Amino acid sequence: MHFAAALPLQSGRSIRGYDLSFETYGQLNAARSNAVLVCHALNASHHVAGVYAGQDKSEGWWHSMIGPGKAVDTDRFFVIGVNNLGSCFGSTGPMHINPDTGRVYGADFPVVTVEDWVDAQARLLDALGIRTLAAVMGGSLGGMQALGWALQYPERLRHAVLVASAPNLTAENIAFNEVARRAIVTDPDFHAGHFYAHGVLPKRGLRIARMIGHITYLSDDVMNEKFGRQLRDAAMGDYKYSTQEVEFQIESYLRYQGDKFADYFDANTYLLITRALDYFDPARNYGGDLSLALARAQAKFLLVSFSTDWRFAPARSREIVRALLDNRRDLSYAEIDAPHGHDAFLLDDPRYLGVVRSYFEGIGREMELVP
Amino acid sequence: MHFAAALPLQSGRSIRGYDLSFETYGQLNAARSNAVLVCHALNASHHVAGVYAGQDKSEGWWHSMIGPGKAVDTDRFFVIGVNNLGSCFGSTGPMHINPDTGRVYGADFPVVTVEDWVDAQARLLDALGIRTLAAVMGGSLGGMQALGWALQYPERLRHAVLVASAPNLTAENIAFNEVARRAIVTDPDFHAGHFYAHGVLPKRGLRIARMIGHITYLSDDVMNEKFGRQLRDAAMGDYKYSTQEVEFQIESYLRYQGDKFADYFDANTYLLITRALDYFDPARNYGGDLSLALARAQAKFLLVSFSTDWRFAPARSREIVRALLDNRRDLSYAEIDAPHGHDAFLLDDPRYLGVVRSYFEGIGREMELVP
Repeated sequence: MHFAAALPLQSGRSIRGYDLSFETYGQLNAARSNAVLVCHALNASHHVAGVYAGQDKSEGWWHSMIGPGKAVDTDRFFVIGVNNLGSCFGSTGPMHINPDTGRVYGADFPVVTVEDWVDAQARLLDALGIRTLAAVMGGSLGGMQALGWALQYPERLRHAVLVASAPNLTAENIAFNEVARRAIVTDPDFHAGHFYAHGVLPKRGLRIARMIGHITYLSDDVMNEKFGRQLRDAAMGDYKYSTQEVEFQIESYLRYQGDKFADYFDANTYLLITRALDYFDPARNYGGDLSLALARAQAKFLLVSFSTDWRFAPARSREIVRALLDNRRDLSYAEIDAPHGHDAFLLDDPRYLGVVRSYFEGIGREMELVP
Repeated sequence: MHFAAALPLQSGRSIRGYDLSFETYGQLNAARSNAVLVCHALNASHHVAGVYAGQDKSEGWWHSMIGPGKAVDTDRFFVIGVNNLGSCFGSTGPMHINPDTGRVYGADFPVVTVEDWVDAQARLLDALGIRTLAAVMGGSLGGMQALGWALQYPERLRHAVLVASAPNLTAENIAFNEVARRAIVTDPDFHAGHFYAHGVLPKRGLRIARMIGHITYLSDDVMNEKFGRQLRDAAMGDYKYSTQEVEFQIESYLRYQGDKFADYFDANTYLLITRALDYFDPARNYGGDLSLALARAQAKFLLVSFSTDWRFAPARSREIVRALLDNRRDLSYAEIDAPHGHDAFLLDDPRYLGVVRSYFEGIGREMELVP
């Protein structure tokens, strides 16, 4: 969908003449009340569920969660996935033409925040004729957007579902983002963010960024279980005694993930989205008091965290829970004992999916939605 | 000290005509029985204690631990610090001339292991006329060398002191090493490890490697306490809305650490030492059974770990403790409640230093050493 009118951004800049890519699943009911907005995290897109005809391995990133008869049942709910501004999966981003200059944005794409994304999503809903959402949901950075919705448009959502999320990044979270950004920015092929014009991609930096990311998505436990100290060429028996060859399975896995990512992800998008993560901090304008910051929220909340997630640890979700309780908000909280670290929010864990299913069944009953 | 004879290495290669830099503190007694060998970790050297005359900030890396009247009292013990082969602080390493080719080693420097370092240290002690050590001690990778000593030369040491150490690296530990190595190796200035000949240094890669390292040395807690979400230019009030400028204090700190490190540390040394860490695994030849592997050890042990160290967590020290107990070895173990993460082993924590002091006082009594 094209938006001609300029969107004012938190930075004071604005963006005009932009597109948002989105997908929908299920049917909007006559009352236009059954819509569920799904917000994506760092490297995902509007393609949250289903498969593309004739394309193998094209499952949406929350395919295990969303679909007919699934936890978020598209026989009952109208689900909307939207690719955020600045991303690289169809919505306007750094690789597109800046209408003000006629040149590719590159590093000149304005810095966008979680709050900006929420504003852009709200305009999309306006255009779709949807005033009130049954729910906004997301994992990780997507959960931050759901929280942003509850604060920016408190009257436009009934429920906010935050999975593996946090009220802001810790210093360590910011540190990992910063190292990844430095790897990209100092890659000689980055060309100050205008690499498109040079016909190159800063793949070295993207690979390093993705390898760092992957380490933080997994738990130490699951890494030890999946890879441990296994050698890649175990049949050799002994080490290769090499500093550069792949020796351990975990090295092979990380290099593969890095290579794959560098082939499809935009470097400027990586910078923008990690910065949006860094900047999100609703308590900031309330002297760091999250309870004060969340006083505006009217939605009911479901929060889910995972025991081995050290990127957005359960303690971070509990901060939100406490702040909501301080405001006597209606909330459910589930801490799932799962070995998979932060990645668990994307995986097919029956207890996790059961919690979400039961919550959405409750929304259905409350709203008297019939499949 | 120069060593003309070739040292056979675990890889099957050997190295000849090499030098080891070392420092000593205190006096070797007449019985030659009061020597304590101190082994260094990734980026340290033989300069473990004391200051160089006329040089500000030249304290040895374990200056708070070792010296006259300190926990390891050099009025009583003869302390030896040695720079390992392949390092970049005086001992023969990748930036030196390979006597076989007449050219700088660079990436051709042989891969050295913890076991190789222990062998080289043993030869140094032979040359110094020291048959038996009162103790071998080290933190982190240095602790692995102390453990290596107990297994390779069980009759040559009375005590092994392992601080913040581990019996091997986990998959996550290896993963962080691998990302750091890839950052270095893929830096265009690395030139396949022969950058010396090109008059350049792979500083981009070294900076990234060091930034990653620093994150893993600190605990999430101490990072939040020291840096939290503080802005570097807090007086500005608002964010800069920039992906590349320094916004948060933690970014400034990491960039500074990266820059400093890239100015003095050798890239090939970084690869070699992280690989030595990856490879160390005494249980490997015993089907993964650490208790079997440690059956050879005769020394008495002190192990110390720190509660917030997530790089070499207390659980890893406890694995060694259990394996030693299975072998009915004499050991002391202290788990220090300290907020500083892995870095705690270098810091001036009174409980930590108290434990080491008391242990070395015990050695002094046992050996009837008088100051």
